[in-house]
Amino acid sequence: MKPIYRKSVINEGHGLAPWREKLNEVIFGSETAAGRNFDLVLIVLIALSTLVVIVDSVEDFHDRHAKFLDRLEWLFTLLFSLEYVLRLLCVRHPWLYIRSFYGIVDLLSILPSYIGLVLPGVQYTSVVRILRLLRIFRILKLSVYLNEANLLKTALYNSRKKILVFLYTVLTLVVISGALMYVIEGKAAGYTSIPVSMYWAIVTLTTVGYGDIAPQTPLGQITASFIMVMGYGIIAVPTGIYGAELIKTAGQTNFSNEPCPDCGSIGHDVDANYCKHCGHNLSDLPSHH
Amino acid sequence: MKPIYRKSVINEGHGLAPWREKLNEVIFGSETAAGRNFDLVLIVLIALSTLVVIVDSVEDFHDRHAKFLDRLEWLFTLLFSLEYVLRLLCVRHPWLYIRSFYGIVDLLSILPSYIGLVLPGVQYTSVVRILRLLRIFRILKLSVYLNEANLLKTALYNSRKKILVFLYTVLTLVVISGALMYVIEGKAAGYTSIPVSMYWAIVTLTTVGYGDIAPQTPLGQITASFIMVMGYGIIAVPTGIYGAELIKTAGQTNFSNEPCPDCGSIGHDVDANYCKHCGHNLSDLPSHH
Amino acid sequence: MKPIYRKSVINEGHGLAPWREKLNEVIFGSETAAGRNFDLVLIVLIALSTLVVIVDSVEDFHDRHAKFLDRLEWLFTLLFSLEYVLRLLCVRHPWLYIRSFYGIVDLLSILPSYIGLVLPGVQYTSVVRILRLLRIFRILKLSVYLNEANLLKTALYNSRKKILVFLYTVLTLVVISGALMYVIEGKAAGYTSIPVSMYWAIVTLTTVGYGDIAPQTPLGQITASFIMVMGYGIIAVPTGIYGAELIKTAGQTNFSNEPCPDCGSIGHDVDANYCKHCGHNLSDLPSHH
Amino acid sequence: MKPIYRKSVINEGHGLAPWREKLNEVIFGSETAAGRNFDLVLIVLIALSTLVVIVDSVEDFHDRHAKFLDRLEWLFTLLFSLEYVLRLLCVRHPWLYIRSFYGIVDLLSILPSYIGLVLPGVQYTSVVRILRLLRIFRILKLSVYLNEANLLKTALYNSRKKILVFLYTVLTLVVISGALMYVIEGKAAGYTSIPVSMYWAIVTLTTVGYGDIAPQTPLGQITASFIMVMGYGIIAVPTGIYGAELIKTAGQTNFSNEPCPDCGSIGHDVDANYCKHCGHNLSDLPSHH
Repeated sequence: MKPIYRKSVINEGHGLAPWREKLNEVIFGSETAAGRNFDLVLIVLIALSTLVVIVDSVEDFHDRHAKFLDRLEWLFTLLFSLEYVLRLLCVRHPWLYIRSFYGIVDLLSILPSYIGLVLPGVQYTSVVRILRLLRIFRILKLSVYLNEANLLKTALYNSRKKILVFLYTVLTLVVISGALMYVIEGKAAGYTSIPVSMYWAIVTLTTVGYGDIAPQTPLGQITASFIMVMGYGIIAVPTGIYGAELIKTAGQTNFSNEPCPDCGSIGHDVDANYCKHCGHNLSDLPSHH
Repeated sequence: MKPIYRKSVINEGHGLAPWREKLNEVIFGSETAAGRNFDLVLIVLIALSTLVVIVDSVEDFHDRHAKFLDRLEWLFTLLFSLEYVLRLLCVRHPWLYIRSFYGIVDLLSILPSYIGLVLPGVQYTSVVRILRLLRIFRILKLSVYLNEANLLKTALYNSRKKILVFLYTVLTLVVISGALMYVIEGKAAGYTSIPVSMYWAIVTLTTVGYGDIAPQTPLGQITASFIMVMGYGIIAVPTGIYGAELIKTAGQTNFSNEPCPDCGSIGHDVDANYCKHCGHNLSDLPSHH
Repeated sequence: MKPIYRKSVINEGHGLAPWREKLNEVIFGSETAAGRNFDLVLIVLIALSTLVVIVDSVEDFHDRHAKFLDRLEWLFTLLFSLEYVLRLLCVRHPWLYIRSFYGIVDLLSILPSYIGLVLPGVQYTSVVRILRLLRIFRILKLSVYLNEANLLKTALYNSRKKILVFLYTVLTLVVISGALMYVIEGKAAGYTSIPVSMYWAIVTLTTVGYGDIAPQTPLGQITASFIMVMGYGIIAVPTGIYGAELIKTAGQTNFSNEPCPDCGSIGHDVDANYCKHCGHNLSDLPSHH
Repeated sequence: MKPIYRKSVINEGHGLAPWREKLNEVIFGSETAAGRNFDLVLIVLIALSTLVVIVDSVEDFHDRHAKFLDRLEWLFTLLFSLEYVLRLLCVRHPWLYIRSFYGIVDLLSILPSYIGLVLPGVQYTSVVRILRLLRIFRILKLSVYLNEANLLKTALYNSRKKILVFLYTVLTLVVISGALMYVIEGKAAGYTSIPVSMYWAIVTLTTVGYGDIAPQTPLGQITASFIMVMGYGIIAVPTGIYGAELIKTAGQTNFSNEPCPDCGSIGHDVDANYCKHCGHNLSDLPSHH
């Protein structure tokens, strides 16, 4: 499995004017030194601007450095706006880019500042800027981490049906446990409604256990004990599902990628001498050891 | 492994009048378009009616919309009653169906409303309706998720003995830890009896940790630390048991147990036509599909 | 792997008078119907007597049924005393039995009642009776669950070195985290000494999280966050160690148990045609498929 | 895989005067009886001196035994100082040793006492002594546990890219969850700033769940439920990654990669003398030990 540098149609820049093609390579690509440097600078800017949003939410810090943080934020907004315009300039289908996932994320990370100019009273818009963090995934996608992320994603995708069956079972468990505890414990212990009891069931089944709501009657504690042991047991299920899938996915490198020269079938064991489908001798294949 | 549409005797409709046979196909089957649509409508109805029960338990909501929720509930009850009657009509052994697991669940999901008419004072009967959620499993059983659910269940079944040995060990640990903490911490710290201490031990061993009861003496904290590390360690056991079984179960469908008649080698893929070691034709093997 | 009914020297009854040999078979064995019935009765008695100890610790229950519980307890004590005497009678080396692990457990489960007669003021002696639960493991050892328990134990034994390295790493982490948080948070937040901080570190690393002690300063919360992520990551380690070992141990049934007729070596793959050590043809072995 | 006693250049003692070479063998080596005894004494001293630091932090204990603990600490400091001087004496490149990781740890474990003499007011310096615990790892490194620790480390190293992708995903999740809960719950429920909310997100995602901060509005509880289920699901990821890697790493030492020169089959055990498929002698293969 070698890294694949697939350029989606969204980011396509071929056939544009040479300077735009060149720009596309720097901004969207990571094969050239300029492209890699651009990615690096972008990662640093994103990290810094996220830090500013985080730090700005601390009241003490905000009160003392409001002006400085505001200026920094405008610096980042202008830089990212410039980047956004450049991205629009160097793709063949700007509209496709705007509507793409990363196009929307790019827009969302500059919009709040401009909205703040027009509607200064609207709170919390600045928090939206934190979605900038998602932009780093686009860069990671182009890098050597591609294969690793793909392996994790393939294993997740292959086990999706098992995970859905598992999630529905857990949901049923949460609803029934919640209803049960609502009836047993009632309002005195904080189980004021089934939704609240379901919240408690999730807190318990995931073994988080805040303790803001906890059973107080003997019967409630016995029921909760059973729910906990079940929750403990079902940790094993997603771990087992995903682990087994990961082992299988990672193990598929034990299969040869070369097709049988006679019948064209693939997926032979690397130690196979004969095609398992047509019996053709595979010993002459270049990959054969 | 292809999906198996096994029709149990309970749902058997063959040999009935044509319209009843047709009805059986729609209600119990999922091979026809009508059957699949029926399943879909049923899933939506069950989800909605469960939502009504959940939402109705919120005091605020109940006070404002009591009448509307009540009418909705009656609508669902009548629809499910109609469905229940139709199910009775189109099976060959109605009594068998009534006594079956899903027959009882079907009845339990309509009964509370009628009981509420006769005995209006009885509380909490409405909560029983939440068991309707279980009915969705019957539909899932007939679908493409059958194999996935079966794989999870087979792995669970195959590791049942190991899990029982494990559970008895955990139970012993819970009883002894509980008794120990009851003696060490005593009533001052909330360990008022061995059952309560056992509840604490389960909360701790499963790493839920509400904090409603927590050790306060140095000796209690040391003992609790050991119990926690043990609890942490034994998470590995069910995960390991189940994961190993899942890997084995998932892997078993891929290899044939039959040796090559020519060279005697085993471990061929189930879809192999030719021995991968000597090239002998395997198509005549009894197990060959 | 077939169940092995190994009779240790401790329980040896051969060469005694016939009635004592017979008794030995019933009490220590599980091959005869009488032996299995004896085991069953014993399991029920142990479970009941443990339940009595547990229930007796509930103040409410104790106050109302003190006399009845006391009589029940004496009944169990007398029955177990009788059993203890019978065990002594039917083994060839009584002294060896008395000093063995199960011999001590047997004694500990009857002693508290007699001590209570002599020293009525001594509290908590009754709790020692709960160790009776351990006696059930002796019976399980003789049963069909032997293999399953052995597999779990073999996997645990094979990974003992890895687990020790892991435990020492965790211990170092606990001590250093504890010392760090003691310095950072200090007494105001409840980190009154390094041992208490270590207790907090264990509660955190095992993800139990009671919340009785929690960081309150920003620096403390940052440090705690790192400790938690580490704790979260190291859950993977014992699970991985044990799971890998379990898969390996369970997989060893893929190896043939038969020695090479020529060089006597074992551990050949079941699909091996030739001894991997001396090249002798293995095809004639009875187990060869 | 046999234990490897690699002597790094840092600890190199060859070419020195015989008594210094001999000393080097005792202090840095573990092949001779004297070397093993030295290690054992050192482990006991380190354990004891760490215990003294821990116990000294308990106010009660400190008040009663301050003098005795102080003397003990000076005894350990002098012994470790002597050891440090001896280590300097018997290595060929003392400066290299001083700047090495274990050189610094060795120095840090004696320095606090001397600093305390000069600056008696400086608090907490004594806690630095607890780093002595790290010195035991040097001894473990030389022992039979080397292989086990190496296996765990190799598996960790091989999965480092997957783990980094995973950690960045978790970090993004923590930042976005934190910002979300800060907006939803606000200051009333304790989510006073994004950093505090991120601390809550880590406490929740790792399933620690102190409960010092917990959602109180319905919307906050719903959001928190989703975060918890996600956190629960992603436990499976590191466990799966590490477990799969451990299985692969542990398995790799067992199979040879070289094909049989006669029949070309691979997958022979590393200790195989003859090809298991055709019986060809494998002893001449370059990889054969």
